[in-house]
Amino acid sequence: MPQHFHVNTPLLESVSMSKMAGTAVYLKMENCQPSGSFKIRGVGHLCQQLASRSKGVVCSSGGNAGMAAAYVARKMGLPATVVVPSSTPPLVVRRLQEQGAAVKVAGKVWDDANAEALRLAETEQLTFVPPFDHPLLWEGHASVVAEAAAALGPGARPGAVLLSVGGGGLLCGVVRGLKDAGWADVPVIAMETVGADCFNAAIKAGELVTLDDITSEAKCLGAKTVCRRAFELSQSGEATIISELVTDQEALRAVQMFLGQ
Amino acid sequence: MPQHFHVNTPLLESVSMSKMAGTAVYLKMENCQPSGSFKIRGVGHLCQQLASRSKGVVCSSGGNAGMAAAYVARKMGLPATVVVPSSTPPLVVRRLQEQGAAVKVAGKVWDDANAEALRLAETEQLTFVPPFDHPLLWEGHASVVAEAAAALGPGARPGAVLLSVGGGGLLCGVVRGLKDAGWADVPVIAMETVGADCFNAAIKAGELVTLDDITSEAKCLGAKTVCRRAFELSQSGEATIISELVTDQEALRAVQMFLGQ
Repeated sequence: MPQHFHVNTPLLESVSMSKMAGTAVYLKMENCQPSGSFKIRGVGHLCQQLASRSKGVVCSSGGNAGMAAAYVARKMGLPATVVVPSSTPPLVVRRLQEQGAAVKVAGKVWDDANAEALRLAETEQLTFVPPFDHPLLWEGHASVVAEAAAALGPGARPGAVLLSVGGGGLLCGVVRGLKDAGWADVPVIAMETVGADCFNAAIKAGELVTLDDITSEAKCLGAKTVCRRAFELSQSGEATIISELVTDQEALRAVQMFLGQ
Repeated sequence: MPQHFHVNTPLLESVSMSKMAGTAVYLKMENCQPSGSFKIRGVGHLCQQLASRSKGVVCSSGGNAGMAAAYVARKMGLPATVVVPSSTPPLVVRRLQEQGAAVKVAGKVWDDANAEALRLAETEQLTFVPPFDHPLLWEGHASVVAEAAAALGPGARPGAVLLSVGGGGLLCGVVRGLKDAGWADVPVIAMETVGADCFNAAIKAGELVTLDDITSEAKCLGAKTVCRRAFELSQSGEATIISELVTDQEALRAVQMFLGQ
């Protein structure tokens, strides 16, 4: 069995949310991952498959995917380069550097940084780590469902799985994990904030849509276009996916409710 | 194997603390326990051993031990009573009630509440759950070291284990866990805040000392007298225990450093 970089995070029941929902609500504590988010599952898996004989990795995310790439590369003994746009806060740059990554600033928006990351991957022969759109990422993310199933024990079956969508990588991974767990018919509630709602926009339009801008506060979590696979899953009937929107304020209140528990 | 109530929490390396210390610093994420702290390890074990045929449990802690007792009792299908002094904040009372506990207010300080809890245990035939001074608690707490050893893998050996001391229950449990792991000679650094320093005071005096008052901000974590076993461990040479004090401000800065990571 290959070593992996993520940890098996606790699955905790939220008393206050269970009371509000009228049924047991469990939280998968992915904030406890070494890189701070679930992204390490897919990024770790992808790097193990693609980067073991690489000269290094390059990623264009200043968010959780970039942190995961920096962490995984450090553990693999590989150099990591994270390309970010000039709008990236200094704190984010410092954290990436603390994880041992070289941070390169290129352009004003993410698309510029991503173009530079792709160029570096080509010219420097580095392994490109996409933030959400790759089957190996989804394969890695699927482990979150396997762990939850093991924690709930045999015979348990969730009524629904709720997750957030940025570019759709977690959604694709969870759908895969549900299939593997024999839970293919468990509905997935895909949450987005208004202004970072590329998945919802695609479903409404019946085709992939590119947002003009991310106007939600969830800037570094948002993607302008959802990955094609996520959109296809919503159309194909392979999975039951319910797309829901909340405002930034509603999302913030939910976080506060959890922290106040 | 008996069911237990705690979860195997992640062991995470803190990049910023490792950099500062010049050696790898790992954090055992006990904040992810279902009841919010490590106390569930010992309280769960004690209740399994003593309360399975009980009419209910009673505890006198408005802090983490009370939350653990309420949680464990709920999972065991037993009524829980938590007796707290009138100085207890309403938020604490509400959280205990959310965990299904009956909260009884008795007296002005913890000693009054504890006397009432002991009286209830006697007259109502309830299982008394002490917050820190019981061998079954220490036996349960020892599991935290076993998990850390498993996470570090064979051959690894910590240079030191750092923990905080309130009444000394975690200290007794960790010393036991270190012995079980073959790490009996690993030094334990026992941290207290100034004004909640009953362990340090006992070491200085060469005997158990009862503090006049808890003057640290860490009110519900402090005990006026450390448990006898913790003091004996520091004197007997069974373990290498280094007692250290920090101010509330220094402790707060350490927490902020972690959160800022």
